[in-house]
Amino acid sequence: MTLAIDIGGATRIYPVIGDPIAQVQTPRLINPLFAEHGLDIVSVPVHTPAVRLRDVWEALRVTPNVAGIAVTVPHKVSAAGLCSSLTDAARAVGAVNTVRRAEDGAMHGALFDGVGFVEGLGDERKRLEGSTVLLIGAGGAGRAIAHALAAEKIARLHIVDERSDAAAMAASMVNQGKGCAIATTAWPDFASCGVVINATPLGLKPGDAMPLSESCIRTDMLIADIAALDRETPLLAAARRLGCATSDGDAMLKAQLGLVAGFIAGLPAGALLSQDPTAIR
Amino acid sequence: MTLAIDIGGATRIYPVIGDPIAQVQTPRLINPLFAEHGLDIVSVPVHTPAVRLRDVWEALRVTPNVAGIAVTVPHKVSAAGLCSSLTDAARAVGAVNTVRRAEDGAMHGALFDGVGFVEGLGDERKRLEGSTVLLIGAGGAGRAIAHALAAEKIARLHIVDERSDAAAMAASMVNQGKGCAIATTAWPDFASCGVVINATPLGLKPGDAMPLSESCIRTDMLIADIAALDRETPLLAAARRLGCATSDGDAMLKAQLGLVAGFIAGLPAGALLSQDPTAIR
Repeated sequence: MTLAIDIGGATRIYPVIGDPIAQVQTPRLINPLFAEHGLDIVSVPVHTPAVRLRDVWEALRVTPNVAGIAVTVPHKVSAAGLCSSLTDAARAVGAVNTVRRAEDGAMHGALFDGVGFVEGLGDERKRLEGSTVLLIGAGGAGRAIAHALAAEKIARLHIVDERSDAAAMAASMVNQGKGCAIATTAWPDFASCGVVINATPLGLKPGDAMPLSESCIRTDMLIADIAALDRETPLLAAARRLGCATSDGDAMLKAQLGLVAGFIAGLPAGALLSQDPTAIR
Repeated sequence: MTLAIDIGGATRIYPVIGDPIAQVQTPRLINPLFAEHGLDIVSVPVHTPAVRLRDVWEALRVTPNVAGIAVTVPHKVSAAGLCSSLTDAARAVGAVNTVRRAEDGAMHGALFDGVGFVEGLGDERKRLEGSTVLLIGAGGAGRAIAHALAAEKIARLHIVDERSDAAAMAASMVNQGKGCAIATTAWPDFASCGVVINATPLGLKPGDAMPLSESCIRTDMLIADIAALDRETPLLAAARRLGCATSDGDAMLKAQLGLVAGFIAGLPAGALLSQDPTAIR
């Protein structure tokens, strides 16, 4: 994709740091969004080996025209430790995927995986209210989603993971944040389960097993899968065959990009989710 | 100007470092050249206060997808001291305006002001052969031009500057490099002077004095002024009125950009001066 972009001396930069770097999609995805909203910011890849993270971080921190930093593998946890402040989600999960640089060099870290997932549900988001939710996978993305779900009016959250300690940590984070025990690490009764979320990597590779048996899927469920692929995961394919409502990784990613761009530009939360581009000029 | 540019994860970056930064033209000028020649490199401004030069330099040096660094005020001299190696011109003048990063992090500094000036003369370059040349101004740009002129077959080089020590240093550099005394700090006999070059800032500001009296200009002279403005300097205006051949800062800048882009991309010297874009693919 070729985009219209105008890089001048007054342009601010939004480097994405990671290792490897060639596969990162941040510049291609977010630069059109910056341009569309009249924000003079450009994202560029900055290949950052883990042993160089501190040097690169410090240089970006002292560079006045750095608007922020997009953080990807393997730096999401280490970068959280380098921030001056963190959003609630970033602190709870212990990871960042984007950092805003203030004029004085203060670095404010955020994690939008979870809220991006919830926003990406669109109209289906209303299903969360009063629902029993099954979240499969308690890795970084799963923890972020669990944190965001805790802010919704769900009835119960079942967090399952092969690594039982990871599931227990995530459930504990939710219950501490919520102040009551809505999260558990047991599988739910599928008859009363309204929402199923796959936050494991299962389905990314052809031939992967399903994260749960197709026989557990009921037609009135919302089935979500965070994989952003150019094809359906087996879970989503099965859910759509059965007539379920579904949500995929693209919806999550798209919602997240708007949140990230608005955060970096210092706009009010959700400003770039608005359909009215003049709202943020 | 909006240009077609595609920044992806595999794109290499060519930051321009300087302070202030908002006025730098490097990204707008060189990005179209990179794109036109199929080079997946993008230039972005990196605002670098002098006290932060070492931190930023070190971070860029260890970043594998940094193709090089464009260096502008106030870093041209300090950056030369940070390079692992220098071109002849950069070493002689003691300044760099561009640096190529090798895969192992070695930084090779270059200065293209002088050779850019000579290349920018185009067909008029042949006038240098056997000529007496007057160079007014022995600052950074003047020294770079003096160095490049020493590689041409000129007969005599007169270098004048209000700061007589600067003129003497430049003349000494030329004579040492040439191995014979072709350069002097005296004004020439204008009757035998074929080329006049203004490398002072005189003419940049409205109302500036002429760098030499109009009465010294002869119609068979080549008059060059390195100012890159959207209007004529008084010197060039006078020269054109008199029917002299002229060369301006735009020609120098354009030639220099081709040299810089080719150097950064690791192409043979002058590859991007070719009119055939397939030559460098």
